[in-house]
Amino acid sequence: MAGNAAREKANAEVLKRFAAAEPYVEDVRPAIEVMAGFTRDTILTSGPPLPWPDYTGGQRAAIIGAALFEGLAPDAAEAEALLARGAIRVRGCHDLGAVGSLAGVYSASMPVFVVRNRKHGNLGFCNFYEGTNPRRLNYGVYDDGVRERLRHVQNVVAPVLGEAVRRSGGIALKPIMKRALHMGDELHSRNTAAALLFTREILPQFLALAETRRAETEICAAALTEDHYFFLRLSMAAAKATADAGHAIAGASIVTAMGFSCREFGIRVSGLGDTWFTGPHPKVQAKLSPGHAEDEISWMGGESTICETIGLGGFAQAAAFPLQAYQGGSPEAMVERNLEMYQITAGENPDFHIPYLRYRGTPTGIDIFKVIETGIAPVMNIGIAGRDGGQIGAGVVRAHASCFQSAVTAHHARYP
Amino acid sequence: MAGNAAREKANAEVLKRFAAAEPYVEDVRPAIEVMAGFTRDTILTSGPPLPWPDYTGGQRAAIIGAALFEGLAPDAAEAEALLARGAIRVRGCHDLGAVGSLAGVYSASMPVFVVRNRKHGNLGFCNFYEGTNPRRLNYGVYDDGVRERLRHVQNVVAPVLGEAVRRSGGIALKPIMKRALHMGDELHSRNTAAALLFTREILPQFLALAETRRAETEICAAALTEDHYFFLRLSMAAAKATADAGHAIAGASIVTAMGFSCREFGIRVSGLGDTWFTGPHPKVQAKLSPGHAEDEISWMGGESTICETIGLGGFAQAAAFPLQAYQGGSPEAMVERNLEMYQITAGENPDFHIPYLRYRGTPTGIDIFKVIETGIAPVMNIGIAGRDGGQIGAGVVRAHASCFQSAVTAHHARYP
Repeated sequence: MAGNAAREKANAEVLKRFAAAEPYVEDVRPAIEVMAGFTRDTILTSGPPLPWPDYTGGQRAAIIGAALFEGLAPDAAEAEALLARGAIRVRGCHDLGAVGSLAGVYSASMPVFVVRNRKHGNLGFCNFYEGTNPRRLNYGVYDDGVRERLRHVQNVVAPVLGEAVRRSGGIALKPIMKRALHMGDELHSRNTAAALLFTREILPQFLALAETRRAETEICAAALTEDHYFFLRLSMAAAKATADAGHAIAGASIVTAMGFSCREFGIRVSGLGDTWFTGPHPKVQAKLSPGHAEDEISWMGGESTICETIGLGGFAQAAAFPLQAYQGGSPEAMVERNLEMYQITAGENPDFHIPYLRYRGTPTGIDIFKVIETGIAPVMNIGIAGRDGGQIGAGVVRAHASCFQSAVTAHHARYP
Repeated sequence: MAGNAAREKANAEVLKRFAAAEPYVEDVRPAIEVMAGFTRDTILTSGPPLPWPDYTGGQRAAIIGAALFEGLAPDAAEAEALLARGAIRVRGCHDLGAVGSLAGVYSASMPVFVVRNRKHGNLGFCNFYEGTNPRRLNYGVYDDGVRERLRHVQNVVAPVLGEAVRRSGGIALKPIMKRALHMGDELHSRNTAAALLFTREILPQFLALAETRRAETEICAAALTEDHYFFLRLSMAAAKATADAGHAIAGASIVTAMGFSCREFGIRVSGLGDTWFTGPHPKVQAKLSPGHAEDEISWMGGESTICETIGLGGFAQAAAFPLQAYQGGSPEAMVERNLEMYQITAGENPDFHIPYLRYRGTPTGIDIFKVIETGIAPVMNIGIAGRDGGQIGAGVVRAHASCFQSAVTAHHARYP
C-alpha cells in the first residue's frame, strides 16, 4: 500500500504537469539550427531506435529518401552504404525532443515548429505536413514530386509562417486545441478546426506580411487550411512539450511516449527513464481508400500517438464524430471506446473537454498498471500506409498488452 | 386521396427547390441601394407586420432607435410622432426579401449582405451583427455606445468586407454551411466554424486589400471571427434565398417562413401566398446569463428562425453539442428533439448532414399537416432578450400549434 501511495502521488504530479503545460509555437527554423544534437549527417526517424539493418520497407525507404533530399548522398545505393557504415547517423526523434509522423524522417535543413512549454521551459519539435498528395516522404515515398513538395514547404510555406510566428511573439496552442475539441477535432486524425483557429490567430501577421509579399503569404495561408492535417504537426509538438514535462518523475507509472517503428510498438514511462518497452505492432481496424486492400497495410513507424499520450486523438474521439467518414466506425463505437479509456487513465483533463460527454475532461495519463489490471489497451487513431508507400487509409489501433506488462515488471523491480 | 397526392407532389417540388438552392454572397451595400422598395423613410422590423401602435417594448424602442440612427428625427419624441402619422414607414423585413435578427430593424443606410440563389435567381438580404456587446439595437437598445458600434460596422467592417466579396466574384455559402455542420455549428445559435470557413474563403481578398489598407482589413477580419454570431447573418440571408425559392408552389403545405413580433408568432406557407398565420408566442426553455431571471424575458421579434425553416438551427441541433454551454440542455435531449423533427418534415436535406446521426440529412421542410397530425411543434434555437433590452441568454422554443391549425384550415379552404 505504501508503494501504491507513492506511485499515486507521483502520478498525480505527472498529471499536474500535463495540465499545467502552456505550449506556444515560437518559431519555425531548420532542424539543425534549433534542435540540440542535430548534425548535418543526422536523420531522425520514428519509434524505438533500431540498428540500421533492421529498418525495412517504407521506413527504410524514407530514411534513404531523407538522406537524398538532404544531399548526403548522390543516389540510393551510396546512401545505403553511408548508412551501413554509420557515416549517416540514424537516431530516434524522441531523443532530440521531436516526434515523427509515420516514418517521421527529419533531415538537417527541414523546417520544424519550435514549441516551448512556457510553464516548464522545455521545447518540443515537429516538422511539416507535406500536403494532400498521398505520396509523401513520411509515408515511405521519395521521387521528384515528393522532393518538389518538400522544397515548396521548405522554401515558401515555412519561411512565411516562421516570419509570421516570430512577429506574433508566439502563439498559445492550448486554447486553440481546447476550442477545436468543441468543433469536431480530436487533434490527431482530425485537425480541421484547429487549423482554422490557428489561421485566425496568425491572420494579423499574414496581413502585415501581405503588404510586401502577398503571393507567398497567400500560398502559405492556403497550405495551412487545405485539409485536415496541417495543424497535426503543431498538436504533436505541443503534446511532446506537454508529455516531456511529466517525464522522469520518480515512481510514476504514467506513459509519456508511445511510438512505432517498422518492427515494433513501444512506450516510455515517466518513472522508468528513457527506456522503451517494446512489443508487437497493434491490431488495426482500418478504412482504406478505394482500390486498396488489408494485405497492403504496412508499418513504417509513427509517433503521432504522442497525442493519445496527453488525452487527445483516440482518447478524445467522442469529440470528433466526423471521423466516421475518414476512418470508419460508428458514433456509438467511438463513444464506447472513448469511455473505456477512463478506466486506464490517472485523471481527466482540465482543459480538453468532450461536448457530447457533457464537457467531461478527456481521459488523460495512461497508467501502465491500469492497462494490465483492466486488460484494456490504449486506442489510437492513425493514418495507414501501404506496402508501396503513400497513405492508403486511416484507422483505429489498439496497443498490444505485452509492452505494458514489461513496463510493469520493470516498475516493480525499480520501485519494490 | 387525390388532394393528398397533389399536396405531396407540390411539397416534393418545394423540397427539391430547397435542395437545389445555391446561395452566394455577392455584395455588401446599404439597404436602400439594393433592396427594392426601400425608401429613406423606411424602417424594417421582424415578424408579421403590425400597426404602429401595436409595437411595444424592445421592438418599439428598436424601431425608434433605427429612426434616430438614420437621422429621420432629432429625438425619440419626434420619431414617435413621425411614426404615428406614417411619415416614417414601418414594414416587415420579409416583404422586402430580408430577414431580421431579433427586433430586426433595418434603416436605409445600414449595410446588408446581398445573397443570390444562383439556381433560382432570387435574392435574400440580411444586415450585420453588431458585435459581442449584449447591448445592441436589435435587442431594443439605442444609446451612444450602440450608435458608435453601428457606425463602426457601417464605416469600417462592411466597406472592407464588401470590397473583398466583390473582388471574390461571390462566395458560395452552402459548402461552408455543409462543412460547418460537421464542426459543431447548427447555423443559428452557433456559427463559429462557419465564420472561420468563410474567413478562409475570403482570405485571399483580405491579403490583397492588406497591400494598401492593412489596418481596416485587420479590423474587419477580427469582427468576422470574434465570436459565434457573425456568420448567422449570412446563414439567415442564405436561408431566406433558399426558402423563397420554394415559396408560392400551389397546393404545397410546407412552411417557408417563421417569425415573431413583440405580439405574436407567425408562419407563411408555400401554397398559401404571403398571408401570415399567427398565434401566441412559443414556450421557451432558456439559459440566462448570471444575474438575470425568467420574468425579464421579453419578446421583441425575430426571424432568424428562417434557419429552422430550411433544416438548420433546432433541426440540426444534434450537430452542435457545444450549444449545451450556451443555451442549456443535454446532448441526449438535443438528439431526441432533433429526431422528433423528422416526424413533421417532408424530407431529409441532401446537403446538410449530422455526423452524430451517421450523417443523416437534417429534417427539412416543415409540413403544417404533419405538425397538426403528430402534435409535435417545430423547435427553434433563439437568443433571449431582456425587458430592459440587450441579450440576457439563449434558449430553445417550441412554436404553439394554433397558427399551424389556422394554416391547415386555410389550406383545406383553398385546396378543397
